Amino acid sequence: MDNITQIAFNARQAANVLQTISTAQKSVFLNHIYAKLAVAKPDILAANKIDKDLALKQVEAGKLSSSLYKRLDLEGSGKFETMLQGIKDIEQLEDPAGKVHSATKLDNGLELYRVSCPVGVLLVIFEARPEVVVNIAALAIKSGNAAILKGGKESFHTCSAISKAIREAMDDAGKAASDSDDEEKESKKALNLADAVQIVESRQDIDGLLKQDKYIDLVIPRGSNALVKYIQWNTRIPVLGHADGLCSTYVAESAKLDLAKKVIVDAKTTYPAACNSTETLLIHSSHLDTDFFQQLARTLVDNGVTLKCDAKSLANLQKDQSTFKDNADKIQASNDEDYDTEFLELTLAVKTVNSVDEAMGHINEHGSKHTDAILTENESEAKQFMAGVDAAGVYWNASTRFADGFRYGFGAEVGVSTNKTHARGPVGLEGLVIYKYQLHGNGHATADYGADEGKRPYLHERIQVEEKETLGELSNKRQRLN
Amino acid sequence: MDNITQIAFNARQAANVLQTISTAQKSVFLNHIYAKLAVAKPDILAANKIDKDLALKQVEAGKLSSSLYKRLDLEGSGKFETMLQGIKDIEQLEDPAGKVHSATKLDNGLELYRVSCPVGVLLVIFEARPEVVVNIAALAIKSGNAAILKGGKESFHTCSAISKAIREAMDDAGKAASDSDDEEKESKKALNLADAVQIVESRQDIDGLLKQDKYIDLVIPRGSNALVKYIQWNTRIPVLGHADGLCSTYVAESAKLDLAKKVIVDAKTTYPAACNSTETLLIHSSHLDTDFFQQLARTLVDNGVTLKCDAKSLANLQKDQSTFKDNADKIQASNDEDYDTEFLELTLAVKTVNSVDEAMGHINEHGSKHTDAILTENESEAKQFMAGVDAAGVYWNASTRFADGFRYGFGAEVGVSTNKTHARGPVGLEGLVIYKYQLHGNGHATADYGADEGKRPYLHERIQVEEKETLGELSNKRQRLN
Repeated sequence: MDNITQIAFNARQAANVLQTISTAQKSVFLNHIYAKLAVAKPDILAANKIDKDLALKQVEAGKLSSSLYKRLDLEGSGKFETMLQGIKDIEQLEDPAGKVHSATKLDNGLELYRVSCPVGVLLVIFEARPEVVVNIAALAIKSGNAAILKGGKESFHTCSAISKAIREAMDDAGKAASDSDDEEKESKKALNLADAVQIVESRQDIDGLLKQDKYIDLVIPRGSNALVKYIQWNTRIPVLGHADGLCSTYVAESAKLDLAKKVIVDAKTTYPAACNSTETLLIHSSHLDTDFFQQLARTLVDNGVTLKCDAKSLANLQKDQSTFKDNADKIQASNDEDYDTEFLELTLAVKTVNSVDEAMGHINEHGSKHTDAILTENESEAKQFMAGVDAAGVYWNASTRFADGFRYGFGAEVGVSTNKTHARGPVGLEGLVIYKYQLHGNGHATADYGADEGKRPYLHERIQVEEKETLGELSNKRQRLN
Repeated sequence: MDNITQIAFNARQAANVLQTISTAQKSVFLNHIYAKLAVAKPDILAANKIDKDLALKQVEAGKLSSSLYKRLDLEGSGKFETMLQGIKDIEQLEDPAGKVHSATKLDNGLELYRVSCPVGVLLVIFEARPEVVVNIAALAIKSGNAAILKGGKESFHTCSAISKAIREAMDDAGKAASDSDDEEKESKKALNLADAVQIVESRQDIDGLLKQDKYIDLVIPRGSNALVKYIQWNTRIPVLGHADGLCSTYVAESAKLDLAKKVIVDAKTTYPAACNSTETLLIHSSHLDTDFFQQLARTLVDNGVTLKCDAKSLANLQKDQSTFKDNADKIQASNDEDYDTEFLELTLAVKTVNSVDEAMGHINEHGSKHTDAILTENESEAKQFMAGVDAAGVYWNASTRFADGFRYGFGAEVGVSTNKTHARGPVGLEGLVIYKYQLHGNGHATADYGADEGKRPYLHERIQVEEKETLGELSNKRQRLN
């Protein structure tokens, strides 16, 4: 077995154990990680200093951006403690595994349960911020998954030090499980979970891991468009994530000017490099007949935004030469490409449309299925937009920047997905589980069922399940009822 | 736009409309298809005769199996009517789209809804049976998806005739929508859905379509292992299905002999070519100390099964030369490959194991994550097995052959998935939807939230949602309560 296959195989072995442990056991592992990282803080910060010193040379040589350097830093005020607190926060979230989605009585004594369970082995590829290792490790363990992580090469020493502490914590906690005084025989076995979270170093390792479809269940790339597309084309393992974040906001005929100003300034300017920032503004043509669009544009330009306008909207802004005379460079003509571009900076493409149908058509053709908004006072138009736009988020009178796991109330997110399968939009713990069907019988055989003489029909009676009920809770409740 | 891109683009346009239509409108389209196919029966059977005549020549020349010829036939007793009835059955199922999964009040006037919606455009590749066109078309329309279908080349004339009738029905029904007397303005527009279900002819078309990730959302291959793997490696579109169906049944120490005989005969012999048939029998070593395994083997051999045994189990069956003397050829030594083989015939690999851990280890390493069973009287052992085996179906004292959408009570199935993302096991209508997040605000901007002075915290209050409630139902209920 080569080195890469061994990593994938070890992760699978860990996943086989992780899928069987209880919520309480998961907490033991998470608390051990918390404690070990706290103890290892000096070592981790020393490793972080090596990464920072190396990076600083690159910044000075103009080979690395200072913002990337900043993201590397773990020493800044409260950063380490925030990272540690994240573990506690995730430990407190509801365990997404072991919940019964549905239950059906197929026949007397033959019952089918659909129960949530971990996906298995995750391969997560991310860029500079080293605290992502801790965040993903905690999410993976809480959901019962093993994880293989690859960070940016700039954070290698920091990630290695963090990973070493996590491995030691998992190892210790696994042994502690074997020393436990618990009555249950199972929990006295040592749980070998040292390989539950592994890190790999190089891009070559990634190429090798993308072939490990026997052991790896899901790839989560958090990085550039090019990285995500490369991965999608080079593996048969499912990929969760987003290549683009081309969000649009449509200002409909009945939109209020103040509301539009507030929402669009938020959507464009609060963090232009984020995937949920608006990149295209669709404006209803009626707003060119009044000073609505001019006023909106004025506010955007005053907030530092450059507008790349189609012919009609450009003419509207340029009809009075004096209006934008101090910011003439911020009013530009757009080309076709601008409507397919994720600017990631204070640039906004503007297009005039004549109807909500035209707006939806533009978004469905040019958007990236991430998040799109309509600003309108007309409820039926809003509903039409939200049904007809094919995106993970469809918003009515709100900023596209709300597309975020924390803002949605998920507690933590593993990424944002523009997939149309499995998990869509901000993905929290729930996106890291799938389900299995448990069938409980008593010697049942399919040959006994059918329409012919001597055969039985299926009952297919639905068994009532409460939201987030576990199989144990469901069984206890049904026994009490009988 | 080349021909293939045009097909994918047209499907996407149809999907954009399909995602907005109501359950009642879906029924109109399905009823039109039912009526049109009934009228077109003579044409379809004439086309079927062309396919059958061509196939018969191939059968006579030994180039095609007679079972495939049989599957081509649509004329056999009741086959056409069963196909038509399938449309009515699917029309009666609950609409999987438009259901609220969860709702959260992020702030006053800012509410987040997770609502189910169609996946979009499906590419379904299947083999000989032409009635699959009708089945998939009905499933796609009921779930709000457009579909591009590719059948086996042997059924091309039949599939074309069926597809022509479906296109005409969709066209008529779309125009009928525009003539409607309905008060609602929206429903008076013609719904252009003629391209909702399209068929393509050649393998080359498939290669072209696999590149249309801009327009196609999900590929569902129903065919050989080689076909499924080829598709998985040659597209970045998600693939739903299963390459292998290597199911195992483990006979634990406490298993009852009569139960084991009944379940395993069912699991192995009722349809050996099915993906849910058991291919590997794991037997606890204690059963070699009694005549348990000999009796079980006797029953299987009497039912025509050939056993490929590991050294221990082989020795057990051969210790008394006279026992299997009339069927000595049915007791063979296994090799390593047999435990990774989906026989699809009356052959069963047998392996002796010493514990449930060893059984689980074997299944997790050699199985295909389809369906695996344990036969045991020990509940905690059964639970351990069902938690520790990573498969879409984990069964206790029941035949693996129950893994089927009809048997599970789904009404219809689009296939069986061994994926660990999106949908797993038999996949019905529910596997053809995903969700979108709708956010309803009133000019809300992210910049207003946070811990700093003057900022607000998120409320993240859960709004109670009933199972399968639509957004309209939820709104009405909340208005009544206020």
